[in-house]
Amino acid sequence: MASIQWWRGNRRSLLRGGLLAGAGAAVGAGAAVGAAGGWAGSGWAGHQSEASEGFYGVHQGGIITAGQQHTVLAGFDVLGQDRAALVALLRGWSALAADLVDGKSVTVPIVGASAASTGVYADVTAASTTSDSLEAYGLGPARLTVTIGFGPSLFTTADGRDRFGIAAARPAALIELPRFPGDQLVAADSGGDLLVQACADNAQVAFHAVRAMARVAPDVASLRWTELGFSSGDPAGTPRNLMGFKDGTMHSNAHLPDDMDATVWAGADGPAWMRAGSYLVYRRIRISLEHWDRLDHRLQEKVIGRRKLDGAPLGGRDEFDALDLDARDPNGSLSIPDTAHVRLASPQFNSGAVMLRRGFSYNHGTTPFVERWPPWRQALEYDAGLLFLAYQKDPRTAFVPIFTTLASSDALNQFTTHTASAVFAVPPAASGPGDWVGRTLFGADNPQHL
Amino acid sequence: MASIQWWRGNRRSLLRGGLLAGAGAAVGAGAAVGAAGGWAGSGWAGHQSEASEGFYGVHQGGIITAGQQHTVLAGFDVLGQDRAALVALLRGWSALAADLVDGKSVTVPIVGASAASTGVYADVTAASTTSDSLEAYGLGPARLTVTIGFGPSLFTTADGRDRFGIAAARPAALIELPRFPGDQLVAADSGGDLLVQACADNAQVAFHAVRAMARVAPDVASLRWTELGFSSGDPAGTPRNLMGFKDGTMHSNAHLPDDMDATVWAGADGPAWMRAGSYLVYRRIRISLEHWDRLDHRLQEKVIGRRKLDGAPLGGRDEFDALDLDARDPNGSLSIPDTAHVRLASPQFNSGAVMLRRGFSYNHGTTPFVERWPPWRQALEYDAGLLFLAYQKDPRTAFVPIFTTLASSDALNQFTTHTASAVFAVPPAASGPGDWVGRTLFGADNPQHL
Repeated sequence: MASIQWWRGNRRSLLRGGLLAGAGAAVGAGAAVGAAGGWAGSGWAGHQSEASEGFYGVHQGGIITAGQQHTVLAGFDVLGQDRAALVALLRGWSALAADLVDGKSVTVPIVGASAASTGVYADVTAASTTSDSLEAYGLGPARLTVTIGFGPSLFTTADGRDRFGIAAARPAALIELPRFPGDQLVAADSGGDLLVQACADNAQVAFHAVRAMARVAPDVASLRWTELGFSSGDPAGTPRNLMGFKDGTMHSNAHLPDDMDATVWAGADGPAWMRAGSYLVYRRIRISLEHWDRLDHRLQEKVIGRRKLDGAPLGGRDEFDALDLDARDPNGSLSIPDTAHVRLASPQFNSGAVMLRRGFSYNHGTTPFVERWPPWRQALEYDAGLLFLAYQKDPRTAFVPIFTTLASSDALNQFTTHTASAVFAVPPAASGPGDWVGRTLFGADNPQHL
Repeated sequence: MASIQWWRGNRRSLLRGGLLAGAGAAVGAGAAVGAAGGWAGSGWAGHQSEASEGFYGVHQGGIITAGQQHTVLAGFDVLGQDRAALVALLRGWSALAADLVDGKSVTVPIVGASAASTGVYADVTAASTTSDSLEAYGLGPARLTVTIGFGPSLFTTADGRDRFGIAAARPAALIELPRFPGDQLVAADSGGDLLVQACADNAQVAFHAVRAMARVAPDVASLRWTELGFSSGDPAGTPRNLMGFKDGTMHSNAHLPDDMDATVWAGADGPAWMRAGSYLVYRRIRISLEHWDRLDHRLQEKVIGRRKLDGAPLGGRDEFDALDLDARDPNGSLSIPDTAHVRLASPQFNSGAVMLRRGFSYNHGTTPFVERWPPWRQALEYDAGLLFLAYQKDPRTAFVPIFTTLASSDALNQFTTHTASAVFAVPPAASGPGDWVGRTLFGADNPQHL
């Protein structure tokens, strides 16, 4: 194992780093900055968000946390098979994440072999790698959460190796998803040994968190993919997706399921190390916005099964009315059509299966397209859509059966394409300083991981 | 000219469109929604921003408007050479933008030949295209600005044609930029006949505006490129870019130049139709964040010429201290090195040349890279950086000379690559309802355009 030492910074350590001489002590959240008399010479007028979600607890943040405005998702691959290095990474990530969530400035050492191997930077590496990149400096915690997950490939590689001695601890619920009809998955944007999900009310705070986590150990884990997402709404209401419909009325951070133990949190039927954790299914869903925009809103409502303006189910009056799947309109047709999205996704239609949705839109701008049929258009189309994040107790009884139905019959499929996919076991939170996410799996007090 | 009729919606017209029957009248900004008793059945709890920047005035919004949190930029190409259709587009864009800036729901007709030619959608087009896409519904104006500009190619095509009879009205200041050392410009992400710059404090509001503008006339103008940007800061302070340094201390929306007529607004030395307008130079600047992160912050400060934490010029004490280009440190070296970015970009070094900067970061996630030299790494790197937007009275005496110096000598060039570029003439604002951006160039009261 490489020699690893963790520095956990606060503003005081940043000062010691030499950025600003002679300043007074200032610790903790960014909120302290404005009032700290020692910060002579700073012309900064802050746009701070002092609210902190905290890092420690029973469940990791970013699952039932009230919806934040932005997310940055990152899949990582672990290089090699050095269990001690992986554990060091997880310990370091937890300590770093705790500081980030508190809005502290951080020091980020590059660990492992990097400092020695990066020849062209060798003269500056030792000092440089302890500096906060500062792009989130002064913005405060901004309700940042940092959520860490483990992909199936961390337990068992594609060629069947047990790299880290945890294959026996792999939960049965941590499946590889089946291939669904219509899947157009980009492998480079899918999967991953590790997940970091950073959510915050400020895009730069969320990115700063992932950037710092990725800097920690480039020779232990490297980025596999990243995605940036944003939400339109406030934490209390149901935000709208880019289709213009409310997204997550059924079960989202704004409207939690009644019985979280039955739906979201892993329980006693799985391995002990996952109790109070959850399973994340991530799907990047591209939406054909131009096509959608040319569909009359009354037909859009038939596709979704809800009214566009207020989100009420068709045949109902209020967004939160129960779905009446048997209701009929004056013509005798089903109010919520056979192929409507809400019908096929509803708990009533899926033996009560429920997922907790965190909806963020993504927008990669525009990409060219060419049609080989009338009207033979060639132009740009939006590369935009939804980062579908669903937390659940067990994907085998939630996402898989629900989406099996949707993938074959949902009217929405005319407008959506799944282009990336991943599944992660999201273990319980670190309980307090010194504890770390993954201890229940890797920790010395839990040698059997079960 | 195609038969074109413009509908300009407010919430009342949306109601007439049938989305919600029986509701009371509700007009104007989204702020009105919560209080409108007629909106029975809406469970929406809004995250509104009621502040409106207004669309009409002397100068277009989005130039000296206090910095917003998000931008969506779109370059458009005009199809064909139908001057009347182009004028109809500009009139329609102005009316639509005025409603968007006020936070109104909008109706967006597809004009020109589209309704007839889009065979596969023919049955639904007529109705559908009047609907607001609704993803920004209820979010309020959110300080949206919509800025419209004209590229050089609108006046003279690459093959020299005068498509719209305005070649003689092309301002001398509306140049094509020279090729600079280090340019790695992607043509598909550069240039454009028309610009729409939407800025707002909500990403979805900004995107909604561009989406609506793009929907108006797909057979008159089509998207050429789009970019999304975000800012870290508040309007009063200097936001930080992804390098962690304050961006725009010298002249930005947070710190305007003293004499705007001398630096930003087009004057009597150019064509009359541009008076009170400005010229925008746009550059997408990719930043090698990983490389930057491995450089000690003290060396980073030498590259920039400012302190990272508080933005003070090296050798100075406060962010807004004047640059002392002759100051020397105790060792006798220049405090602000010869190749420091702020030295080479400073008015002192450029005959007083000044640009008004609107800084937004962009983040396209990650892309693969391979190094063919030590340490022969293969991994992902961030595809992120700065959307450099600079408004100026005349690029020939501002951006071009300043960046000619920078492109050859700036120490920052080790970390930055310009990957897209465009120049636009941004005419004066529409003066009030009925007026439109471009009337001074195309209007019947100005047949000579001069």
